[in-house]
Amino acid sequence: MNNYCIIMAGGIGSRFWPLSKDNYPKQFLDILGTGKSFIRSTYERFSPVIPDANFLVVTNAAYKHLVLEYLPMLKPDQVLCEPARRNTAPCIAYACYRIQSQCSDANIVVTPADHLVTNELEFQRIIRLGFDFLGQNPQALMTIGIKPSRPETGYGYIQVESLSRDNVIPVLRFKEKPDYETAVKFVADGHYFWNSGIFLWTLKGIMNAFKRDLPDMVKLFDEGRDIFGTPEEQDFINKKFLDCQNISIDYGIMEKSPDTYTIPADFGWSDIGTWGSLFTHAKKDAHGNALRGKVVSVDNQNTIINIEEGTEAVVEGLEDYLVAFRDHSLLVCRLHDEQQIKVWIEGLK
Amino acid sequence: MNNYCIIMAGGIGSRFWPLSKDNYPKQFLDILGTGKSFIRSTYERFSPVIPDANFLVVTNAAYKHLVLEYLPMLKPDQVLCEPARRNTAPCIAYACYRIQSQCSDANIVVTPADHLVTNELEFQRIIRLGFDFLGQNPQALMTIGIKPSRPETGYGYIQVESLSRDNVIPVLRFKEKPDYETAVKFVADGHYFWNSGIFLWTLKGIMNAFKRDLPDMVKLFDEGRDIFGTPEEQDFINKKFLDCQNISIDYGIMEKSPDTYTIPADFGWSDIGTWGSLFTHAKKDAHGNALRGKVVSVDNQNTIINIEEGTEAVVEGLEDYLVAFRDHSLLVCRLHDEQQIKVWIEGLK
Repeated sequence: MNNYCIIMAGGIGSRFWPLSKDNYPKQFLDILGTGKSFIRSTYERFSPVIPDANFLVVTNAAYKHLVLEYLPMLKPDQVLCEPARRNTAPCIAYACYRIQSQCSDANIVVTPADHLVTNELEFQRIIRLGFDFLGQNPQALMTIGIKPSRPETGYGYIQVESLSRDNVIPVLRFKEKPDYETAVKFVADGHYFWNSGIFLWTLKGIMNAFKRDLPDMVKLFDEGRDIFGTPEEQDFINKKFLDCQNISIDYGIMEKSPDTYTIPADFGWSDIGTWGSLFTHAKKDAHGNALRGKVVSVDNQNTIINIEEGTEAVVEGLEDYLVAFRDHSLLVCRLHDEQQIKVWIEGLK
Repeated sequence: MNNYCIIMAGGIGSRFWPLSKDNYPKQFLDILGTGKSFIRSTYERFSPVIPDANFLVVTNAAYKHLVLEYLPMLKPDQVLCEPARRNTAPCIAYACYRIQSQCSDANIVVTPADHLVTNELEFQRIIRLGFDFLGQNPQALMTIGIKPSRPETGYGYIQVESLSRDNVIPVLRFKEKPDYETAVKFVADGHYFWNSGIFLWTLKGIMNAFKRDLPDMVKLFDEGRDIFGTPEEQDFINKKFLDCQNISIDYGIMEKSPDTYTIPADFGWSDIGTWGSLFTHAKKDAHGNALRGKVVSVDNQNTIINIEEGTEAVVEGLEDYLVAFRDHSLLVCRLHDEQQIKVWIEGLK
């Protein structure tokens, strides 16, 4: 099998404080109470189409032990450690150079580690469709486009010219996160999809794109071309990675490329990027509360209460609130003020 | 010195859950943030008038190590262990039999372990006044009466016939906790005082009262008369204490006795029996919040936030609430619903 999967797992997920923290980011949590961490669910979602030996997880060195704890089927050298965060383009370039040292005609799917997919069979059908397309179109750079269900302003959009059911469609252009009015138009128009951040391409296709669009980055990694996959790789990365341009794969390559395609998909996707989206997907009690942990809930409505194992809580008299406790940290706030969390926690430092 | 102090420290203080729990009751906490636990403050308040060797603490065996941790100047045999809670009369009887084995002409002051006194000098003046009075009136049974500052319905009251400044006054009668209208009348009348639960008497005086009013209890303790103060005492207590009538010293003796007196006092007293009374005595920020611990408070008003050392909290958007975390347990509730706490925590069991 030439199919590879790169799982990007370097995020710190500060939006879910205190559930996620620097020392335990969102990808390792089971925020939804499914019984599995996000990274484990991500692995299992790809497992039917990717052999275990062909997974690569890119993360921070501090999280390597957590990755191996949640994915014990991986060998330690399948966990690539970035010495610092440099956005998605350098992360993907590093993993592609490693794959190049093992398999020059690989197909690659790239995925974030912390998203939700509820229909895994449909998901796998879409991924297989993408790999099939790459067989005839090895230069294609593909993204999974999600059919939008609401005028979401938190995602980038992909515009296509014409629709064709269950097919791979050329991208007309990528659109940055829109304002609300624009998002309403996008959804009504029908030619726009959410950019899921899941990419498919051949190794040759993406390497050509890096050479064309990010030549400085290629020059940098090419210096170590012969040491990827050897014991010297980590030292090389530790020295050179910091010199990489901090740029996303979307800005760095996808938006510039003439060969981009999208596969419109509808497999129950969410990036669970906010407490609000968690609330949307969580099970609720009769009063609309999403409860997690040993909780006595009295006279609450539309409130998230999420406390870690080994703790207990009595919570009374809240409406549209968020109560979360993990790792010695407590958050009580109005749900609609959650975008302030990052600001407030600065006050604790 | 013949002055003895009995500190009653057997309570479990479930009203302050989760700060106080079975495994760590209120008397060992520093709820007000003074830097000292209630039991330590109690000891220090009496220390100028009672020699260290003359303190006795009556508590549950489970708390003996905590008592000695907070009062390391006491010897282990100064901590008397009840095998079960039997209210204040058996507790005081036990301690009096122990004192009888050491000093037959003792003066005794009895105090709860978990009250607040802000004017310690005035407190000591009152206690000395009481001991002086006992010198001429060895049969007197005295309580400290607190000048009421509000129509409190949570305390018992003491009625006197006539007032005399800074003197010991005969009690007309004891009044159980009144309803609000009655409490308003008591305060307006001026002849009523709060019953503080602090008692003074001679050993001979209280032993006579026990014989007269609780003869069954006396009979029970008399069986072990010769083994108080010996290594066999604990075994005897473990066997016999459970047979004692469960009765308070107020009902069992004080209300029946012809020789009761009160010393009206005003030394900044509170039993800190509720979160509301804690709130009254706590320091507040500019928005009326009583904050304790590493807390970022955003847009809160008249709210208690009390979290244990080693934890941190961000709390936003609450008014008249109580947020407390200790020992893996969280409470968030409306302050005026605090009397329900005991009911709610049943749901955690």
